[in-house]
Amino acid sequence: MADLIAQLDEGNPRALPRLLSLVERRDPAGMAALAALYPRTGKAAVVGITGAPGAGKSTLVNALAHAARAAEMRVAILAIDPSSPVSGGAVLGDRIRMMDLHADPGVFIRSVASKGRTGGLAPAAAAMVHCLDAAGYPLILLETVGAGQDSIDIDVLARTVIVVQAPGFGDGVQAIKAGILEIGDILVVNKADLPGARELARTLRGSLDHPEPGEWEVPVLLTDAASGEGVPAVLDAVLQHGRWLAQSGEIAQRLRVAASAEVLDGVRNELQRRLNAATAGSLDQVISDVAARRTPPEDAVNAILASLPGLGGAASDQRGG
Amino acid sequence: MADLIAQLDEGNPRALPRLLSLVERRDPAGMAALAALYPRTGKAAVVGITGAPGAGKSTLVNALAHAARAAEMRVAILAIDPSSPVSGGAVLGDRIRMMDLHADPGVFIRSVASKGRTGGLAPAAAAMVHCLDAAGYPLILLETVGAGQDSIDIDVLARTVIVVQAPGFGDGVQAIKAGILEIGDILVVNKADLPGARELARTLRGSLDHPEPGEWEVPVLLTDAASGEGVPAVLDAVLQHGRWLAQSGEIAQRLRVAASAEVLDGVRNELQRRLNAATAGSLDQVISDVAARRTPPEDAVNAILASLPGLGGAASDQRGG
Repeated sequence: MADLIAQLDEGNPRALPRLLSLVERRDPAGMAALAALYPRTGKAAVVGITGAPGAGKSTLVNALAHAARAAEMRVAILAIDPSSPVSGGAVLGDRIRMMDLHADPGVFIRSVASKGRTGGLAPAAAAMVHCLDAAGYPLILLETVGAGQDSIDIDVLARTVIVVQAPGFGDGVQAIKAGILEIGDILVVNKADLPGARELARTLRGSLDHPEPGEWEVPVLLTDAASGEGVPAVLDAVLQHGRWLAQSGEIAQRLRVAASAEVLDGVRNELQRRLNAATAGSLDQVISDVAARRTPPEDAVNAILASLPGLGGAASDQRGG
Repeated sequence: MADLIAQLDEGNPRALPRLLSLVERRDPAGMAALAALYPRTGKAAVVGITGAPGAGKSTLVNALAHAARAAEMRVAILAIDPSSPVSGGAVLGDRIRMMDLHADPGVFIRSVASKGRTGGLAPAAAAMVHCLDAAGYPLILLETVGAGQDSIDIDVLARTVIVVQAPGFGDGVQAIKAGILEIGDILVVNKADLPGARELARTLRGSLDHPEPGEWEVPVLLTDAASGEGVPAVLDAVLQHGRWLAQSGEIAQRLRVAASAEVLDGVRNELQRRLNAATAGSLDQVISDVAARRTPPEDAVNAILASLPGLGGAASDQRGG
């Protein structure tokens, strides 16, 4: 574990991939290395990019990485796939488009499957962001693959959230409906050359609340990520948002929210793991019995709690007559 | 407890209020009575009424109760206040408008505070619905006081959900944005005499997916709840939805979802209660230490788990070196 950290500090290119693999499967040596590295973290601009499928998220991430390299910033990209319980296959296909970036030693690309047992992002995603941060990448781009409810959890991992839209999605109504605009620190209308792009930007601007003095004013930016047009302005907005977070003191709040979510999710995941182990195979039957009115809900709750190792019986004998 | 059930069966008017009070505070005698009564439940039409503040939910609930009485149906009303940790005061003010119903022995009115410890509806709300169901009310109207995220949980308690809107809320965009249309089995545009009501109904109809054959087709109904106009058609739609639930077999799925939510919420509430008791006063500091990078997240998770009585240490010694 000390070896791994020494290799990371020496810039050995194999150290970070190895650390991430160990952390992803919660290997004790990896978790110990992460614990030792954790005090170094909290400095990177962690940017979540989310939005509707087809809006061009991957292309924008790619273009943002190019813009960062043009500004001589090192950049790490973490592709998070909330639909898959294992990493690899599906996500790697997308990443082939990023092969031009693979050749650049200043760019690090990795994917992670993040289907949490209890919903939300799996602990692996948060832990891997800490590793990239500790490895000294000043800019970490998080891309969710797929859309829906899972995307919304990205606001817990990221310090800055970019929501990408493109014309042809019902003029923004779908985006409003999906509830993802609220989490955006920066809104991007991609495919700016398509008809309706300017109207979509207007609709999005109209849906934003006016900021109070000192609050962040969410910019709505037009890009053509495929050609790179407008992308440097998005990178500028990211860096400006980072400065606003620091100056306003909002960064402390975001780090606290992230820490709280990570710790409490970790506790819940572990309790759920023990609960699943204790009720394996029997939960479906218990629920069916309650639904069919054969077992009262309270009895089912007590039976499940009684089956948890070490918690047995604590709540099961409270009923009087 | 056998006394209480006997009194309920004899139609003693003091039995149901007493049972509800016992169940609300999870008194062992009340929980035992509920367990004995539980096999009788699952038959009532449990109808959740939700929507934006000011749309006229309370007035519609009142008018629906009158329409039910005109059709000689007994009706119970449960007002759920998700913002308050204790019942009584605030909700009772609203109920004064229902004093005309109070005089009718075929109408039962009760409020419940339902702020759950871990979000979602408190176990008391589900338990009280079971009591009203067991007491033989064929129609149970659940009204949420206030709006927002909490309202969405009503779809777990209710077999039929009515979403109420009124003109003057941005032509339905706010409703779409709030994400509550998706849970509506029946959409009601109240204050039908106001300008924009018909346009709002059109917008809502336009936002609905077309049903597949055999699926429920969500009706959009116009009412003036204050005068009662259009309200009998809403009651008809409720009864029709109940028949569709039974004929399509969808009722089994809804009862299963409700049972699963009630049981798993009960387990989570109890685990959270034990977690809170174990970390009382220390959790804020633990989170602050993680946010400030003084404690790694994994160490915080293990410290919290170790503090749970009976679970101590199980996960805290897994880290290697």
